[in-house]
Amino acid sequence: MERQGASEPTPAQQRILDAAAVCFGERGFHGTTTRDIAKQAQLSPAVLYVHYPTKEDVLFEISRAGHVAALEILRTAAARGGTPTEQLGELAHDFALWHARSHAVARVVNYELGSLTPQHHEEIATLRRQMEQVTREVLEAGLVTGEFALANPSLTALAVLSLSVDLGRWFRTTGTWQPEDVAKHYRELAIRMVAAR
Amino acid sequence: MERQGASEPTPAQQRILDAAAVCFGERGFHGTTTRDIAKQAQLSPAVLYVHYPTKEDVLFEISRAGHVAALEILRTAAARGGTPTEQLGELAHDFALWHARSHAVARVVNYELGSLTPQHHEEIATLRRQMEQVTREVLEAGLVTGEFALANPSLTALAVLSLSVDLGRWFRTTGTWQPEDVAKHYRELAIRMVAAR
Repeated sequence: MERQGASEPTPAQQRILDAAAVCFGERGFHGTTTRDIAKQAQLSPAVLYVHYPTKEDVLFEISRAGHVAALEILRTAAARGGTPTEQLGELAHDFALWHARSHAVARVVNYELGSLTPQHHEEIATLRRQMEQVTREVLEAGLVTGEFALANPSLTALAVLSLSVDLGRWFRTTGTWQPEDVAKHYRELAIRMVAAR
Repeated sequence: MERQGASEPTPAQQRILDAAAVCFGERGFHGTTTRDIAKQAQLSPAVLYVHYPTKEDVLFEISRAGHVAALEILRTAAARGGTPTEQLGELAHDFALWHARSHAVARVVNYELGSLTPQHHEEIATLRRQMEQVTREVLEAGLVTGEFALANPSLTALAVLSLSVDLGRWFRTTGTWQPEDVAKHYRELAIRMVAAR
């Protein structure tokens, strides 16, 4: 998987990131202290500071890794499909599946962006623009082939992504549907949103 | 507008609620203190406590008012349409318009539910179930008339609402599109998602 210039986290770092995702998910970034994260990770605050000098560094690493993973999912799915319709179906399916399965991390990744430093926020915004671009390019390809008919590919790309992003807010694996059920249905909804009629 | 048993806020209370929405939107519920809210409202903490004994009471009132408004928008829009297709179009349009125009409040309303007490959370969950029900009933009506063809009205109702809810996350009035542009496009997307082909 593409790492966009960052190295893979060490096992200790991953333990910190997992602990922080739990804390941020429960109490929000501003409601979490570095001591909370250290306690959740069963490490001393001193060890945490060695790896991540600030709480914001931890949030950025969670957010960066989540966005890199999401972008990779979109690219891989789009590359798998043959026609634009198949590409969009794969993309919508896999994106929904990731958000349903990883809904706790998805909440932190999507809803705490306002807590990043301006520089870190810009790095994440770049990844988000790439996610929108992959989706928009599939829609534009379908317009060229005549499979799709829609007025605004840019806004529609955001809407396709919104369907899955919002799973982080409401989806729980303890509910009526399994991640696979949602992914299958969202594949169909995304195609319906854009298909020529 | 239906108030679900609560009285209209007084001008002082509305000032507190508006101030709190700004603070929660910027720093999250857990990152905001009652002193922050009092300062933003230019009132003494003592005055704030007279109206709302706890910070959670303020969040609950913002959340309750937002959900009552959103439910009323869905009901009014659905009642305005003639056919299920028209009802769904009105509903998707007006719900998107509200979320785009009120995106700052929408963020607090949708993303801070985990900070409510269990009793307050249940009251809000009841309102959300009613919102889903209004939407689902329109979809089911369209299945009866044959205007719609879809596999899972419950999950589709959630997806229709997701499109607009996620506007609270990404939409800014400083961006490319005005709220009316998004509302018009989302009317079309929602109908496409369910229309018989």
